[in-house]
Amino acid sequence: MRLQQLSRAFLPLIGGRGIHCSRVLKRMDVPPPSSILNPLHHEEITLFGPGPTNTAPRVCHASSLQTFGIFNPPMVDLMKEVQEGLRYLFQTKNELTYAVNASGMAGMETALTNLLEPKDRLMSLTNGCWGGIAAEVGERCGAIVTKLEHPPGVPFSSDEVEKALKEHKPHVLYVAQSESSTGLLQPVEKLGSICHQNNCLLVVDTVASLGAAPFFMDRWEVDVVYSATQKAISCQTGLAPISFSSRAREKIASRKTKVQSYVFDVNKNMVQWGVDGVAKKYHHTYSSTLLLSLREALSMIAAEGLEQMWKRHSENTKRLCNGIEELGLELFIKDPAYRLPTVTAICIPEGVESPGSLNAYCMEKHKVEFGAALPPLVGKVWRIGIMGYNSTEWHTNKALSVFKDGLLHIGYTPKAAKVKAEL
Amino acid sequence: MRLQQLSRAFLPLIGGRGIHCSRVLKRMDVPPPSSILNPLHHEEITLFGPGPTNTAPRVCHASSLQTFGIFNPPMVDLMKEVQEGLRYLFQTKNELTYAVNASGMAGMETALTNLLEPKDRLMSLTNGCWGGIAAEVGERCGAIVTKLEHPPGVPFSSDEVEKALKEHKPHVLYVAQSESSTGLLQPVEKLGSICHQNNCLLVVDTVASLGAAPFFMDRWEVDVVYSATQKAISCQTGLAPISFSSRAREKIASRKTKVQSYVFDVNKNMVQWGVDGVAKKYHHTYSSTLLLSLREALSMIAAEGLEQMWKRHSENTKRLCNGIEELGLELFIKDPAYRLPTVTAICIPEGVESPGSLNAYCMEKHKVEFGAALPPLVGKVWRIGIMGYNSTEWHTNKALSVFKDGLLHIGYTPKAAKVKAEL
Repeated sequence: MRLQQLSRAFLPLIGGRGIHCSRVLKRMDVPPPSSILNPLHHEEITLFGPGPTNTAPRVCHASSLQTFGIFNPPMVDLMKEVQEGLRYLFQTKNELTYAVNASGMAGMETALTNLLEPKDRLMSLTNGCWGGIAAEVGERCGAIVTKLEHPPGVPFSSDEVEKALKEHKPHVLYVAQSESSTGLLQPVEKLGSICHQNNCLLVVDTVASLGAAPFFMDRWEVDVVYSATQKAISCQTGLAPISFSSRAREKIASRKTKVQSYVFDVNKNMVQWGVDGVAKKYHHTYSSTLLLSLREALSMIAAEGLEQMWKRHSENTKRLCNGIEELGLELFIKDPAYRLPTVTAICIPEGVESPGSLNAYCMEKHKVEFGAALPPLVGKVWRIGIMGYNSTEWHTNKALSVFKDGLLHIGYTPKAAKVKAEL
Repeated sequence: MRLQQLSRAFLPLIGGRGIHCSRVLKRMDVPPPSSILNPLHHEEITLFGPGPTNTAPRVCHASSLQTFGIFNPPMVDLMKEVQEGLRYLFQTKNELTYAVNASGMAGMETALTNLLEPKDRLMSLTNGCWGGIAAEVGERCGAIVTKLEHPPGVPFSSDEVEKALKEHKPHVLYVAQSESSTGLLQPVEKLGSICHQNNCLLVVDTVASLGAAPFFMDRWEVDVVYSATQKAISCQTGLAPISFSSRAREKIASRKTKVQSYVFDVNKNMVQWGVDGVAKKYHHTYSSTLLLSLREALSMIAAEGLEQMWKRHSENTKRLCNGIEELGLELFIKDPAYRLPTVTAICIPEGVESPGSLNAYCMEKHKVEFGAALPPLVGKVWRIGIMGYNSTEWHTNKALSVFKDGLLHIGYTPKAAKVKAEL
């Protein structure tokens, strides 16, 4: 371990003992950028897009608190409380319940890369954009992927899913409860038992529905569920809550190959979360900032109660839908029973040539974000998200009034505006 | 698109039009956990571990600001400013410079999974814990991995690296500038040109050195560099700054297989960052909270100047090392020129049976975190990190005085304590 005898040829750049900065000063290649030297100007936007939504003030405050070390006692408590809050939110008793330290998309990747080995079969229910992305993630795992497809916004019935499972015999079925690109709420409560009768595991994406629509992980026999924090949960972006059933854990434990991602490997993550009471071991550095935020968001959820949250989201989205129809516009999902209680897709009426200019105008004039369409509905729908902290009567009315102003701006005369003019 | 004719058999759980919560109320499977209903109690810890370190107050404030939507105008500006600040920090003009939306370990995975295809050869310089982890990440990519190994804390010379490159002909060489498990600063400035003479790409891990030790990406011909925000940068945990040279981009562009990770796929991420001036396209939802924090941390770095940051870290770590030696203890890295200016490893003296009890005592009594050892040095060293916001004379003196009290607690009488008793 004595280094004195080693060649001096590779001493650090500045040489010798310690860094002599006078020799460095003239040698910078890239100067400090002037843009970043300006004071931060933070403009608050009201987020009526498909998510992220605005963060609850109590949650914003929590994220300003000082950082914890990886295994500091308050960090250990924090992780435990987050797990307990997530079990309530998912309605599960699963021990393996935690938050992936990245975006909702990382939740999808964690779910699929851990369950799938090369040559395993994945079936992806596809009636909007998410099923296609899940299929791509599955392909990158080396899985053989079948997409069961419907036109955008058309839900799958349990009968047709059952038929497809019998035909294709997938190891894993992917479904989005919240098809936010179309505003569809896909019923999932019967799929778990159908999957298990067919020796298949069920992965449910609840990114844009968890906390807003009923979800019962254990009762519905869901094997892996994941979500994201920036939607109905009213927390900032950056974590993906996830939970694994005992069936999912058995599949992971019996893998013949290592999970291809080191970062998202459940076996590594669960040790850091102390799942099954094992001694915690470092895998990577979790963001205590985001976990503090999530803890506060979960605390607000526990205090309000899930039933009340579901009711609140249902009522405000109904209020929004009524208001949109009163403006003379058509909703993309016709049957209210299949409408997401968070993201609503509105058909762009004929004759509107530049629907994006409505969004740009509302951002410029009102500092309000509305959602653009994602494939496959680009140019066909606008999307309005009323969720989490913003799921209130006040926010819904604001969304409607700003949207109406946007319609007038692009030259579409809403029915209600006509009525008002006639009075 | 008309759904009225579809079977009613799969209506959402609660049935009918809208959610009738009275029917749900009695049906919850998991009650709200009492732990999370308690008010949040936040205890501030002084972080003298190997990272995360304490966050600068200005950065804490930035993270409490309201969330932005994915492509809101202030979010677009924010991402641009972060890129400019990172180019200064890395000393690069690389267009493909951004922040991975996850931990530093995700920076490693992004670097390696994008550069490596199955059967490619990776050489990992291993003289502590990180080289072994990089080797494992490379294996999970299907690469053929060679570890060039030294005992912990012994740096590699450019001559031996050159020899190994000629022998093993790897496509990618991994090296940690900051071997934080041992406190080693590995010289890397000559490796880029050696790699390029041998048709190899150079990946440098600067997680625990960036902002504290000189680093010149372009001048040193580094192909991929990544770091983490929670060390010398004084930002919270959760982002991994990264940059790719034109050579690295050519390799990625010529891949025959898709990158196995969807989330970390550079081709997807660069479109969301608007690299090369392309129209931005959604890939996943970045955390505006963490980007606001990073923007503020980068602004502080630009205002202080990298040269001054390097000087400050060098001086305070020297102050710490002197203090440790005055206590009669030996440093793990003998030659000061090879000591990291952030994390210092201290040899545990003979006769200390339970070195962890020092850490536990300092946490309990002083709310101070010191670092435990990671493999391969468990039981052999303590680690003290003085970095970022905590790299001040005041913090260094505090670390020394608390550490000394910890030594007394475990029954080791420091030399300096003896002196004091004699006076």
